[in-house]
Amino acid sequence: MKKILEYISSIEEVDRSLDVEVQKKLDSLTKPPGSLGRLEETVKEFARMTGKTSLVINKKRIFIMAGDHGIAQEGVSAFPAEVTPQMVLNFLSGGAAINVLAKHAGCETRVIDMGVNFDFGSPEGLINMKVKKGAANFMNEPAMTEEELAQAINAGIKLAEEAVADGVDIIGTGDMGIANTTPSTAIYSALFDIDPKEITGPGTGLDPAGVSRKVDILRRALSNRAPFDSPLDILMKVGGLEIAGIVGLIFGAAKHRLPVVIDGFISTAAAAVAIEAVPAVRERLFFAHASQEPGHVIVLNKLGVAPLLDLGMRLGEGTGGALAIPIIEASLKIFNEMASFDSAGVSGAL
Amino acid sequence: MKKILEYISSIEEVDRSLDVEVQKKLDSLTKPPGSLGRLEETVKEFARMTGKTSLVINKKRIFIMAGDHGIAQEGVSAFPAEVTPQMVLNFLSGGAAINVLAKHAGCETRVIDMGVNFDFGSPEGLINMKVKKGAANFMNEPAMTEEELAQAINAGIKLAEEAVADGVDIIGTGDMGIANTTPSTAIYSALFDIDPKEITGPGTGLDPAGVSRKVDILRRALSNRAPFDSPLDILMKVGGLEIAGIVGLIFGAAKHRLPVVIDGFISTAAAAVAIEAVPAVRERLFFAHASQEPGHVIVLNKLGVAPLLDLGMRLGEGTGGALAIPIIEASLKIFNEMASFDSAGVSGAL
Repeated sequence: MKKILEYISSIEEVDRSLDVEVQKKLDSLTKPPGSLGRLEETVKEFARMTGKTSLVINKKRIFIMAGDHGIAQEGVSAFPAEVTPQMVLNFLSGGAAINVLAKHAGCETRVIDMGVNFDFGSPEGLINMKVKKGAANFMNEPAMTEEELAQAINAGIKLAEEAVADGVDIIGTGDMGIANTTPSTAIYSALFDIDPKEITGPGTGLDPAGVSRKVDILRRALSNRAPFDSPLDILMKVGGLEIAGIVGLIFGAAKHRLPVVIDGFISTAAAAVAIEAVPAVRERLFFAHASQEPGHVIVLNKLGVAPLLDLGMRLGEGTGGALAIPIIEASLKIFNEMASFDSAGVSGAL
Repeated sequence: MKKILEYISSIEEVDRSLDVEVQKKLDSLTKPPGSLGRLEETVKEFARMTGKTSLVINKKRIFIMAGDHGIAQEGVSAFPAEVTPQMVLNFLSGGAAINVLAKHAGCETRVIDMGVNFDFGSPEGLINMKVKKGAANFMNEPAMTEEELAQAINAGIKLAEEAVADGVDIIGTGDMGIANTTPSTAIYSALFDIDPKEITGPGTGLDPAGVSRKVDILRRALSNRAPFDSPLDILMKVGGLEIAGIVGLIFGAAKHRLPVVIDGFISTAAAAVAIEAVPAVRERLFFAHASQEPGHVIVLNKLGVAPLLDLGMRLGEGTGGALAIPIIEASLKIFNEMASFDSAGVSGAL
C-alpha cells in the first residue's frame, strides 16, 4: 500500500499552460466563437489532460472489470449472483451491450476477472487478475484486506500502463458485478456523509420495497464498518474488487496523462474514491453520462463534474463511455480538421 | 399550393402495431429490461416510423439548406450577410463544422442553395434550387409569395424523395442563413402565441442590447404581418426559403416513412410548422439536441418532444444531427446484434 500511496502522490495537476493557444485556434475556426459548446470545452480538457496541442484519438480501449459481492447474500439485487460469470462469458463471445457499442465506436475491449466467484479456466480473451472469489459480505466483515486492496489497485495500474505502452489515446471504464450498486452507494454514503436513503436506487430492477430493504442493509453495514480513515479505507471496507480495479485504472492513467472516460454509477464510485484521495485526478476524467440510477446526478454534483450524455441508461459495463468516446473524438476532429476564417475566406463578426 | 396540401394530407400516423414484437425482442436481450433507456425508446420510435422490424441504417444523408434574409438589414445578426454565401463555399470545400462531423458520423452531405443572395455559377456539389435571392424583409412585406413558398417546399419534397429512391435510411436537416434565428423566432411566436422576448436569444453572438433590439424588431415585424391564417401562412409571411425547404424535406420524408433527425433552433422552426400543419409528422422526427439558444428548450417542451443530446451547441448547419445519428445507429445495433438471455445462457431476474 505504501508504494501505491507514493505512486499516486506524483499525479500532477492538469496542464493549463496551453489554454490560450488552444482557445485561439478554436476561435479561428469558421463558426461563431463558442458555438460548439461542450465540444469546444472537451478539446480544452483533452489538451489539459495530455499536456499537448497535437490532439488525436486513434486507439481507444474499454476495460470491463468484473467482480462478485458477498453483500449479494443480503438480497440487494434483482438478479442472481450467477449472472456475473455468465455475463463475463457473454462479453468474451461478443453478445453483450458493451460489445455492440464498443464495436460501433471502434473501441477495443478488455475483459478482466478482478474477483468473480467462478472458476473460468483460461478462456480466450479473459484477463485473469482475480484477487479472490468475490468481495466479502461487508455487513459482517471488511470487503477486502489491505493486501487485497493493493493487489486490485495494482492490477488496474498495470492495465493502464499497458494501455499507455500500446499507444492507446483514451480509455473507458466499465464494470460487471451483480449487487455492485450496493457497495457503490456505500462508498458514496461514507465519502460524502450522505444517508443511503438519499442515493439508493433500484439497480438492475428492485421494486420500492426492495429499495427500502437495500437502504436498511446499507445503513446497518455502514454502521458495522465505521469509522473510516480515508477514501481508500472506505474502498477496502465497503467497496468491491472490480471497483478497486477501476480505481487502479484511474490512478495509472492519471499518472501517465492518459484521458479516462468514466461510465456510470459504479465507475463514478471508483472515480469519487480516486478524486477524494488525489484531487488532481478530477480534471483528468471525462464523465460519460448521467445514469438513471437516481443517486448518480447527486454525486456528480458533489464532485462538481458534468456528464456529456443523459440517455436514461443504467446498465454499466462501460456502455455510457462507449457512446461518449465518439463525441470526444468529434471534438478533436473539429479542432484538427475545420477551416479557419482566413483560409476559407469567411468574414468574422461585425 | 393545393397539390402540396393534398400531398401532406396523406401523411400517415406512425405504425404502433409492431410495438409488442419490438419490446419483446428488446426484453429478451442480455441486459435488465429498459436499462438502455433512450436507446430502447429510439429503437421503438424507429420501428414505428418505418413500419418495419428489420431496422438498419446504412445510408445517412444530411441536407444543408442555405438562404438569405432581408430582415438582416434591420441589424439582427452579429455576422454580416455575406457570410451566407461564404459558408456555402466552405461547405463545398469541406471546411465547415458540419463537414467534419458528418464525415465522422459516416453521413453524406448535400448543400442546397434555396435562396442565397449571391451568384454562385455552377460550383461542383452545389444543388441549385434557388427560389429568389433571399427572403424579403418581413418587417416591410411577406418573406415570400405563395408561389415562392410552394416552390421552396416542393424543392425539399423532391430532395427527400430522391433520398428515398437512393435507399437512404435516415436524413438530417441543416441550415445556413445569416439572421435566420430571427425568422425562426418569429415563426415560434406566431405559431404558439409567445411574446418574442421569452424566446429571443443572441443567435451567433448578439450582446444583451442587441437581443433587446432584436425583440423590438420581431414585435414590430410580427404586428406588421399579422393576422396569420395557418402554419404555412406564418412560414410564408415571416419564414425563410431554407426553412421552407426544410419543411419540404420533412413532408417528403414523413410521407415515405423515412426517419428525419431535426437539428437545432432553425430546423425545429421548420419542424414546428410541419407538425402544426400535420400532427402525424411529430412522431416521425427525432430531435437531435437542445440548442443553447434559450428559446429552443421552451419550444421543444411546447412540441412535447425530448432531444437526444444537450451539448450547449448553437451552430446549426445540421451539426447536432450529425452527432445524434450515431446514437440512433447504436440503438439499432443493440437491437440487431446483442445476444439473448437464452442464446447466451444468462439467467433472468429473480
